[in-house]
Amino acid sequence: MSVQAIAWSPSGAVRIVDQRALPEAFLTRDLESAEAVADAIRTMQVRGAPLIGIAAAMGLVAGLRSERVAQREAFLASLTRLVGLLGATRPTAANLRWALDRMARAAAETPGDGQALWDRLQAEASAIWEEDRAMCRRIGEHGLPLVPEGAKVLTHCNAGALATGGIGTALAPVYLAHEAGRKVHVFVGETRPVLQGARLTAWELAHAGIPCTLIADAAAGSLMRGAKVDLVLVGADRIAANGDFANKIGTYALAVLARHHNVPFYCAAPSSSIDVTLADGEGIPIEERAPEELTTVAGRPVAPQGVAVLNPAFDVTPARYVTRFLTDRGLLEPPFRSA
Amino acid sequence: MSVQAIAWSPSGAVRIVDQRALPEAFLTRDLESAEAVADAIRTMQVRGAPLIGIAAAMGLVAGLRSERVAQREAFLASLTRLVGLLGATRPTAANLRWALDRMARAAAETPGDGQALWDRLQAEASAIWEEDRAMCRRIGEHGLPLVPEGAKVLTHCNAGALATGGIGTALAPVYLAHEAGRKVHVFVGETRPVLQGARLTAWELAHAGIPCTLIADAAAGSLMRGAKVDLVLVGADRIAANGDFANKIGTYALAVLARHHNVPFYCAAPSSSIDVTLADGEGIPIEERAPEELTTVAGRPVAPQGVAVLNPAFDVTPARYVTRFLTDRGLLEPPFRSA
Repeated sequence: MSVQAIAWSPSGAVRIVDQRALPEAFLTRDLESAEAVADAIRTMQVRGAPLIGIAAAMGLVAGLRSERVAQREAFLASLTRLVGLLGATRPTAANLRWALDRMARAAAETPGDGQALWDRLQAEASAIWEEDRAMCRRIGEHGLPLVPEGAKVLTHCNAGALATGGIGTALAPVYLAHEAGRKVHVFVGETRPVLQGARLTAWELAHAGIPCTLIADAAAGSLMRGAKVDLVLVGADRIAANGDFANKIGTYALAVLARHHNVPFYCAAPSSSIDVTLADGEGIPIEERAPEELTTVAGRPVAPQGVAVLNPAFDVTPARYVTRFLTDRGLLEPPFRSA
Repeated sequence: MSVQAIAWSPSGAVRIVDQRALPEAFLTRDLESAEAVADAIRTMQVRGAPLIGIAAAMGLVAGLRSERVAQREAFLASLTRLVGLLGATRPTAANLRWALDRMARAAAETPGDGQALWDRLQAEASAIWEEDRAMCRRIGEHGLPLVPEGAKVLTHCNAGALATGGIGTALAPVYLAHEAGRKVHVFVGETRPVLQGARLTAWELAHAGIPCTLIADAAAGSLMRGAKVDLVLVGADRIAANGDFANKIGTYALAVLARHHNVPFYCAAPSSSIDVTLADGEGIPIEERAPEELTTVAGRPVAPQGVAVLNPAFDVTPARYVTRFLTDRGLLEPPFRSA
């Protein structure tokens, strides 16, 4: 079974897995207030674009439990305040805005006072989560034929259960193949600098009983040369209309290596990640992150003080390197016309 | 000026830079005895194949200072004991054996008692060091035309002054270009898992005043795609007769990426690294290192306990990816007939 990254607690709090504590400890936290959820998103206890959106929606519901006795105007005023609070935690995550907008719209469209509004928000947050779970499963079902008995998959970063409300995107076909009784092996690139591969992907695969092997990112080339990889499965943060896509730094190099060694390369994502307003990958902004991610490790300096650092969080892989796009709508080929 | 990784102290001890302390501290140690030198090699205060050989030879001289008053037989008995001690520190380093054998032979060929033998060993150790310095410089001179004004070089691991008795192998042309007043910029792959790029290469370039930028290994692909790299310069641990060569894990992926982006790719090494007894790279044994290099960082676990790890220290790059071999004998092309 894949890990469940989010849930309701019996009392209606938001139960999360604290991803900062992994892999040293598996720690769940019950976040009783919207403030606590906002803090968890800000400090990356919860990460992964789909999961952040779900957590924010559920955080509104948990935080408004005490307002169920309130009149309509007072309830809506509290809602507006908490939407602002949660929306400010990670300004770049598209799913966060999308989920909060959807929640605010649901309340506005619902007549009545506190209890009626809260009931609707509770249903809406559960729907957002449920839709994400279903989306993950459809990606898995469409991808299942790509992962036959004995398949050796290479993945990068974390596009699994810990990034979504369900069984992940890139890892969804792996989970379903394992469920179907197929022997699968996953090679996990550690994904410097933040080590999401080592810390999260290796952990959630081990948790599910799926055999995996951790490698340095720089070892992927010789692994493919040694014919140890049957296919590459990665996620996507944003896909342009022509199929160029942004994903964790290192994805482009894997795509080139896969092409060079005739290894099929799949990009897995919900079809909502396709941004048809962008003609190609040139328009995708690449976040440059803090140099400390490279220059220090666990608080100790590993590079000379003041060294220049180039630390892009993402790179863009041109569409021509992608064998197929694995989405909840099936295996797609660009160009994409609408989301 | 490049850093000087080894020297005689005024009293005749072996003065080293403690490479474990870098980049947090620049710490030199005067090793007064052969035992202290053996310990420094074993604990990797001193590393880099050429440098280990030099340090061992100089360690014999420092350790035998007190035996200068001894009769011939007693002196040679002490020498034999210390050769055994130093030779056992790193059993796989070829240069270590080679340097110790050369020292023992020099003593055997010299007539007389303690003082005469010691004088000869002192001269021999200095010659081993001096020859290595000269070899580095010749590599640099042959490579200088590859690094014109404004050149942007990508390197991996540490094949610089900290790995040799002189100005390094892959970094030698960079040092000479800088000496010649050319503006050069070096991109340094951090080189997971042991981070020799971040810890050592970035440090020695900064120390010499040569501009450099640290990147995650996984960022090299998008850097080349962005036309930020004019050439790749790497070292070699062993080169087969057909030109296949072993070097730090990740070198092969860089070679494929360089080929894909039409970036020239040079392998720099002393001609003594060419092993004509090996027909091709298939015969080069690849050292598999401890999983802890990947699963823990500064003592903290960064991967789930018990996860399987594949941690080859080296990979083999086929000769066809190499633009030219940069050696002390010039820019060479395989096949190689004798060392």
